[in-house]
Amino acid sequence: MKSLHRPDLYCWSTFDESRNVDFHGWAWIRPDGNVLIDPLPLTPHDAEHLRELGGVRWIVITNSDHTRAARELAASFGASLAGPAAERESFPFPCDRWLAEGDELVPGLRALSLDGSKTPGELALMIEDTTLVTGDLIRAHRGGSLMLLPDAKLGDKPRAVASVRKLVAENPAIDAVLVGDGWPVFRNGHQRLAELATSLPPLEVRS
Amino acid sequence: MKSLHRPDLYCWSTFDESRNVDFHGWAWIRPDGNVLIDPLPLTPHDAEHLRELGGVRWIVITNSDHTRAARELAASFGASLAGPAAERESFPFPCDRWLAEGDELVPGLRALSLDGSKTPGELALMIEDTTLVTGDLIRAHRGGSLMLLPDAKLGDKPRAVASVRKLVAENPAIDAVLVGDGWPVFRNGHQRLAELATSLPPLEVRS
Repeated sequence: MKSLHRPDLYCWSTFDESRNVDFHGWAWIRPDGNVLIDPLPLTPHDAEHLRELGGVRWIVITNSDHTRAARELAASFGASLAGPAAERESFPFPCDRWLAEGDELVPGLRALSLDGSKTPGELALMIEDTTLVTGDLIRAHRGGSLMLLPDAKLGDKPRAVASVRKLVAENPAIDAVLVGDGWPVFRNGHQRLAELATSLPPLEVRS
Repeated sequence: MKSLHRPDLYCWSTFDESRNVDFHGWAWIRPDGNVLIDPLPLTPHDAEHLRELGGVRWIVITNSDHTRAARELAASFGASLAGPAAERESFPFPCDRWLAEGDELVPGLRALSLDGSKTPGELALMIEDTTLVTGDLIRAHRGGSLMLLPDAKLGDKPRAVASVRKLVAENPAIDAVLVGDGWPVFRNGHQRLAELATSLPPLEVRS
């Protein structure tokens, strides 16, 4: 696994030929049990690396399109699964916990629930108020700039835009934005999110 | 290939299990002929992508440890090779041009020659004064921070440090630092290089 901006965070990646971007899975290494987010399949090398770092206690899935290798890794590492509360009734498999806005899975890991993406209540995860891990809604196909999921895949663009603006307003300490799809941002993350919010169209007024 | 911070720059990557970092090869797409830097082997998908973007005119190799797939790709794309002038006598294969400090291979692509790395005269390439592409000396095993090649591999640390300081002093417009090994920096590149220079030990005074 690759080191990120903090010594307790790692990722591993696969290149997606249909979008020409890397997909990433994330690992937060903690004394009380490691947490994976949207894990991709692990190579034998990375699985061994993860075992050396203490295995896995929790696996969080941000949305039902990012299940990836979550079930297989939960079985092989004896980990519990957490998914988005808004998808509880239709999720492809049962989870041990269902996360909604503000829920804290473990100390320092807080769930945000984003509206208007391709699935309801897509999760983003905030690690100690400074590192944001996103699923599908916020991404970076171009290096150094954040973008929204393309319009054709958005469930409700005005609600998606409102979610991004709320996230920017409520989380000023964000330094890193680790996007599931594309180039991670390691510094000045709040500024990049604010640039994204500014680039989005004004909210429609519904009468 | 993955898009970078400019629409005319791309990269492709492989994960190196011995160092737990990604290696990258680079492509600069130009109307007058595309340039690759330190290219890794291409998948059929990426080779096709590159052909659609116009093939390859030049391949630059920053040092003899980064020959990678340069010869094979030069043959398959009918490209010319450029290597570091300081390695001319011992390079593993002949090149069509040998680059030294200040040489311009094509308009907008300027060679820098760095001292003290594991090979003499390691090249870095400056694209239009704002994007620096590095070989081995400057790298990023940790996201968001630049580092020097580890001491054990440096040929001459004081000279390597002096090269980094000179680069920082003479190239204030650098925005992106695309490292051959590790996480690229897409914004505030000059600031990250200055942080690296500040973190390095003072130069030894030789009597």
